[in-house]
Amino acid sequence: MEFKISKELIEQIENLIHENQSHELEQLLHDVHFADIAEIMNELEEDNAIYIFNLLDSEKTAEILLELDEEVREKILRNLSAKEIAEELDELDTDDAADIIAELPQSKKAEVISELEDVEHAKDIVDLLRYDENTAGGIMAKELVKVNENWNVLTCVKEMRQQAENVTRVHSIYVVDDEDRLKGRLSLKDLLTTSTKTPISQVYIKKVDYVKVDTKDVEVARIMQKYDLEAIPVVDELGRLVGRVTIDDIIDVIKDEADKDYQLAAGISQDVEADDSVLELTKARLPWLVLALLGGFVSVHVLGLFEPAMEGHRNLFFFTPLIAAMAGNVGVQSSAIVVQGLANNSLTGSLWNRLLKEFSLSLLNGSLLSLILILGSHFLLGFELMIGITVSIALLTVIIFASLIGTFIPIILDKYGVDPALATGPFITTSNDILGILIYFTIAKAILGF
Amino acid sequence: MEFKISKELIEQIENLIHENQSHELEQLLHDVHFADIAEIMNELEEDNAIYIFNLLDSEKTAEILLELDEEVREKILRNLSAKEIAEELDELDTDDAADIIAELPQSKKAEVISELEDVEHAKDIVDLLRYDENTAGGIMAKELVKVNENWNVLTCVKEMRQQAENVTRVHSIYVVDDEDRLKGRLSLKDLLTTSTKTPISQVYIKKVDYVKVDTKDVEVARIMQKYDLEAIPVVDELGRLVGRVTIDDIIDVIKDEADKDYQLAAGISQDVEADDSVLELTKARLPWLVLALLGGFVSVHVLGLFEPAMEGHRNLFFFTPLIAAMAGNVGVQSSAIVVQGLANNSLTGSLWNRLLKEFSLSLLNGSLLSLILILGSHFLLGFELMIGITVSIALLTVIIFASLIGTFIPIILDKYGVDPALATGPFITTSNDILGILIYFTIAKAILGF
Repeated sequence: MEFKISKELIEQIENLIHENQSHELEQLLHDVHFADIAEIMNELEEDNAIYIFNLLDSEKTAEILLELDEEVREKILRNLSAKEIAEELDELDTDDAADIIAELPQSKKAEVISELEDVEHAKDIVDLLRYDENTAGGIMAKELVKVNENWNVLTCVKEMRQQAENVTRVHSIYVVDDEDRLKGRLSLKDLLTTSTKTPISQVYIKKVDYVKVDTKDVEVARIMQKYDLEAIPVVDELGRLVGRVTIDDIIDVIKDEADKDYQLAAGISQDVEADDSVLELTKARLPWLVLALLGGFVSVHVLGLFEPAMEGHRNLFFFTPLIAAMAGNVGVQSSAIVVQGLANNSLTGSLWNRLLKEFSLSLLNGSLLSLILILGSHFLLGFELMIGITVSIALLTVIIFASLIGTFIPIILDKYGVDPALATGPFITTSNDILGILIYFTIAKAILGF
Repeated sequence: MEFKISKELIEQIENLIHENQSHELEQLLHDVHFADIAEIMNELEEDNAIYIFNLLDSEKTAEILLELDEEVREKILRNLSAKEIAEELDELDTDDAADIIAELPQSKKAEVISELEDVEHAKDIVDLLRYDENTAGGIMAKELVKVNENWNVLTCVKEMRQQAENVTRVHSIYVVDDEDRLKGRLSLKDLLTTSTKTPISQVYIKKVDYVKVDTKDVEVARIMQKYDLEAIPVVDELGRLVGRVTIDDIIDVIKDEADKDYQLAAGISQDVEADDSVLELTKARLPWLVLALLGGFVSVHVLGLFEPAMEGHRNLFFFTPLIAAMAGNVGVQSSAIVVQGLANNSLTGSLWNRLLKEFSLSLLNGSLLSLILILGSHFLLGFELMIGITVSIALLTVIIFASLIGTFIPIILDKYGVDPALATGPFITTSNDILGILIYFTIAKAILGF
């Protein structure tokens, strides 16, 4: 079942398109999964991708649209009329349809919505567009199976059959009252093993996990993972059942969150991908580099303050990049562990205990590294012992400070509601660079005197 | 439905334990979800956690065991006899039971297995222990619903009812032949809408996605995400159905993979958590720091080569940390984007195109940063213009080299089957530090002459 797109397959498809052999192409693609066709289209040139898109029926193309890379999807959509786009969206679940509409240019949005055939479907999509994309409302779908608590099992089964047609995976049947307020849930099993005349109110489970429309998506992800749920109902301010979040939406949330933390740690400030344009990539990367450069100015200034050392102890200046690099590395390590602990909710104990632990850790690491430094600088690099000892004492101090700062800053940021991942990457390396150099020369001055 | 553990709740529980009011405690915990009880136990002292564990019945404690932090679970298990542990495992799905057994000390494993009551269950668990934990075999469960292609619908429904008792979520019904080889799948819907006498061979869907027992877990994750599957069957070398991987196992794989990349980028070499011991954390952090220190030695040596510049151009030495830091930051940005692209399978186009793009990007970024540097060093820091110009030319060159290296190395590593995430973090910062300093002084020497 391994499907790998080969160069040969791409070439074969390009040839078939070139020779306009649409029938052969159709046959070739007939048994290919829509996710694989999307992958093929991502690799093709725009005209060829459009050729394939026009060849297939809208049940398949709608799913393909969802799987395409954003740029390719944009190109395909640009070539479709509002009516054609609406036809694709009619095939999709409300949440996926809403996501695609959200990507359209403002002018086209209303036009596409007005062309949607199924009025209920259209209403649901418009409803979804109201919610912030990073909330339960923004990731939920309107498709779900619900029954009224006043019905009996027979009515339920009949109603359910109808509803289930629009729902890919049922997961749970939700029970609501006359006001549409969420009251509980039912399992398919329970329904099948109960007499058909029993009122639902006697069968359903009153304990049901739910989230509100404005619950943050990462919180929804946390809850669903913790309680091992494959779907969770979403209620509005009045407790009315308005939608459902399923586990596949949550996987995207988890991946996006991990990607974001990783990018922040690497000094990239927006959600970019390797295939974005040079301009977009610059916008995501330049701000952090400017920040780092300004930090660099400070380090130049600090070094300038210690110019007198140039007279008798110029060797000291050879060690500044080493000290700065170690400060940066230690700081990033410490902050990364804290950031990950915060993200996984696995950080227990008080701030003081954590700082104490980090202190002992850095004392241990720092002592070993300082020992290596004394030996290395003397025997490997040939500096006099006094230089090695001075630099080592500075290194140990710098490592302790850097690791405490790396631990402290993300915890404090998190306490004040700022994303702690901001503290990793260029921010922590730059500030630790400066602090490291300052500590280094201050200690050297105290020991050697200049 | 928001459950947050408060300090007050913990204190209340500690008091109840202290006063041995087991009945009140039982009542208090009765409606609390097992995942929440596990969270409470993680916060309690060992004796108190054990007290709670002994209070609850094994259906709940088995689930709690799974959710506990590893260290807490280890403590609890140490206090249980082999027979008691076996009783817990009898309540669990095979994959979860196998995971817990794998954590036990070697001596206790066989003993616990021999105490398992359900022989079939025990056989399945032992079977699972054979597989590498990073493969489909290592994450699959034996629990699934399967029917023989030669049965009719009626037999199926009867058999299924029985099998389904042990399976939390059915997802799909798999169809096998007399040799247990996977032939296809059935949906519950199809089964319910077909006449009971129809042979299964006429109803089932012959196209079914599957993976092999030795398929890597990240590959299983990729396939399930791509094809949007909530479960996938696993077959052995002979094509026999041996297990099933469900989406909740995949979420763990995705998270672990993202965590690992993040940790590598931050210079942490094993899977550690903030709450691990100082020794474990040292083992994970020290190797990278030693590497960085050795890189630092090289930078000291390189700087020493340019000592003559100390005579007329000592100002140059003030800029070394700035140059090194910028080289490191740019390198990490470039490599992070590539690493993420590789992880998400979204890296298209040839290596040359990618390097060309990175070149134009760094030319753009570098020119802007160099301009800021010329202005800043002259007007802000008061250096003569010639110094600023020299440093700026070096900075631009260094940024271009650093970004090309950051792009090139992870792609090459990936090509040769090495984890590209290794290239991020301390490795790239250290090598770019050295290269940056070398380029900087070489250019300065060419311009200023010393």
